Amino acid sequence: MRMARVLVVGDEVPDIETGLRELLEVADLVVTSGGLGPTHDDRTVEAVAAVAGVPLRMDEAILGRITAWTDAYAARSGTDPVRYATGNRKQAHIPEGAEVLGLAGTAPGLVLALGEKRVVVLPGVPSELRRLFEDAPGHPLLAGLFDGTHERDRWVTRTYGISESRVADLFAEAGGDAPGIETSICARNYEIEIDVRADPQRADAAAALVERLRALLGDHVFATGEQPLAAMVLELARRRGVRIATAESCTGGMVAAELTSVAGSSDVVAGGAVTYSDQLKIALLGVPEQLLARHGAVSAEVAEAMAAGARQRLGAEVAVAVTGIAGPGGGSDEKPVGLVHLHVASPWGGEGARTQWPGGRADVRLRATVAALHMLREHLGADSRHFGA
Amino acid sequence: MRMARVLVVGDEVPDIETGLRELLEVADLVVTSGGLGPTHDDRTVEAVAAVAGVPLRMDEAILGRITAWTDAYAARSGTDPVRYATGNRKQAHIPEGAEVLGLAGTAPGLVLALGEKRVVVLPGVPSELRRLFEDAPGHPLLAGLFDGTHERDRWVTRTYGISESRVADLFAEAGGDAPGIETSICARNYEIEIDVRADPQRADAAAALVERLRALLGDHVFATGEQPLAAMVLELARRRGVRIATAESCTGGMVAAELTSVAGSSDVVAGGAVTYSDQLKIALLGVPEQLLARHGAVSAEVAEAMAAGARQRLGAEVAVAVTGIAGPGGGSDEKPVGLVHLHVASPWGGEGARTQWPGGRADVRLRATVAALHMLREHLGADSRHFGA
Repeated sequence: MRMARVLVVGDEVPDIETGLRELLEVADLVVTSGGLGPTHDDRTVEAVAAVAGVPLRMDEAILGRITAWTDAYAARSGTDPVRYATGNRKQAHIPEGAEVLGLAGTAPGLVLALGEKRVVVLPGVPSELRRLFEDAPGHPLLAGLFDGTHERDRWVTRTYGISESRVADLFAEAGGDAPGIETSICARNYEIEIDVRADPQRADAAAALVERLRALLGDHVFATGEQPLAAMVLELARRRGVRIATAESCTGGMVAAELTSVAGSSDVVAGGAVTYSDQLKIALLGVPEQLLARHGAVSAEVAEAMAAGARQRLGAEVAVAVTGIAGPGGGSDEKPVGLVHLHVASPWGGEGARTQWPGGRADVRLRATVAALHMLREHLGADSRHFGA
Repeated sequence: MRMARVLVVGDEVPDIETGLRELLEVADLVVTSGGLGPTHDDRTVEAVAAVAGVPLRMDEAILGRITAWTDAYAARSGTDPVRYATGNRKQAHIPEGAEVLGLAGTAPGLVLALGEKRVVVLPGVPSELRRLFEDAPGHPLLAGLFDGTHERDRWVTRTYGISESRVADLFAEAGGDAPGIETSICARNYEIEIDVRADPQRADAAAALVERLRALLGDHVFATGEQPLAAMVLELARRRGVRIATAESCTGGMVAAELTSVAGSSDVVAGGAVTYSDQLKIALLGVPEQLLARHGAVSAEVAEAMAAGARQRLGAEVAVAVTGIAGPGGGSDEKPVGLVHLHVASPWGGEGARTQWPGGRADVRLRATVAALHMLREHLGADSRHFGA
């Protein structure tokens, strides 16, 4: 199975109809997302029925399930259940011949056969879309479609601290693509992901290419799977039996938020301090006032003191500190917008980094967040004998 | 000017070519995004040249500008500038007749005339795409396209704490759409945005519809513009002359990160504490140990104590606290996953809220973040005479 294309159209039925017809010409399976809500501008089901040439009919069983959902919601929220009746009736209308994959709140996911082709109708809310989509291949109307497909072999290589140009050069040096092998090199969240896919009969050649490439990339390779960076950091901390704390200025809590986005992070993440003001750097993290006066809040010295304070005050063995100028204001000739100091401290040593990035406020903050996580990963992954401790 | 459609295609030149040809049939202006990088799998420019029926040629002036950029980058990062030569030459090849809109890093944005139609080629990195796109209408090749378009009048109404179904009912009650008036009702970040657009000659009718709708929605309307919620909160705090602190458990820094995402937030945001563990709730926020023992960390009492502690320890007049069970683990019959307690405290009073949400970890955390910001907004916006202070 190969993704042919993704098409986004407007809310009007003719736009949706035209889009569906075009996609059905190039694909065996068309999956729609969104436009299933209770409001008048959610028109996907109407358009699917028009393309199928069938009427919409009220499905009493579905109406019952939707009404049960809104009754429970009304009881929880203390609202009048009658309020939802009109929306429920709208959402219980489905194309004749369509089968229900499941309910996402009050929205039924649907599957419909159009000759040999299939249309799957899913809600737009990402988590609900994912849940219904994961169940879809088990549906009798869809099972045949997924049966005949072969999965291509795939190798993921993720690098940090090396430019996309340089990765491309090394990829060419490693041999580059060949028939039956297809590679994409993609920059995302300031890492470069190299994704090699191969037909099964070309798996050996692809594996050899990947091995040559990884050797050339060396220490820049930090992952060969899709585990999120924050989850890697937590796993390394768990293995070492240490807890992590954060001390953030310009990232304003983003590093802590990223670490705690991982389920089960509470056994490793002690907590964090967001110290935007100098007063809080002093009060919460014990940064010496004279250090702030001498070097300024955005300095290697203050980053180090923040990390040391976080270790001590937040009860963690390992701490990462970030202080910088995210902009657009606050920059100077000496300390321009985009300047960020980071520091990681642990029982086995400490490391600082000074970085200077281009881009706007959101870019600098995201980049500093990613850099802080990579510093934690490297520090936690490093052999402790490399450090003075 | 109306957006006809958005099409996403694969990285192969034939896919891009087919897509471009189809779009040029339905639109006067086609804007591409992405595929301009230095690597071999960035093939947009090649496909555009094929569709235009012109060869690629090396643009020496552009090569000079790109090389200046990579030379500066190499100097900053201490790498060998020769590394970038291959990528630079690739990126300096542009379709004959194309004009350069500007550089995004090493990637030239382009504009090309195909008869009366125009193709604009932009990079995929959102901030760089935006920058080049904003300059585009000034280009001589594009000026004509934008001249003849009329802007439709538009009314934005954002609500919180009311279901999409109920909004749809009230919209129908207010009169609903009419010829020349088009409305979309969209749920995003747990708010419902009602977007009414009208042709200029229908502006009066649309304004009357919006007025009726807003009257029916009452206090659920919190904004009639597109200012981000966090920016609204900061502006309200600024008007009152107060500073804000955050005390977060399950949201792990997301509330602080959202508040500090706004430029200039440092005059209002004092800072925040991410207290994942009970020990930190005690140490950083002064939550009484017996309160935690008696009520548990996820309780109205602890939320209130966290907010009080944040006000006192973080030097802010106003604090918001969030403690909850984001899941997937950690739930019980009495305190299930999705249970979140919030509390806002200020010199003019305090307010708590107990909420119970469905959804996964990311949903619960985002929803709690949004709820905390709305509590701040309501508390800061409320007349202080309503409170006991």
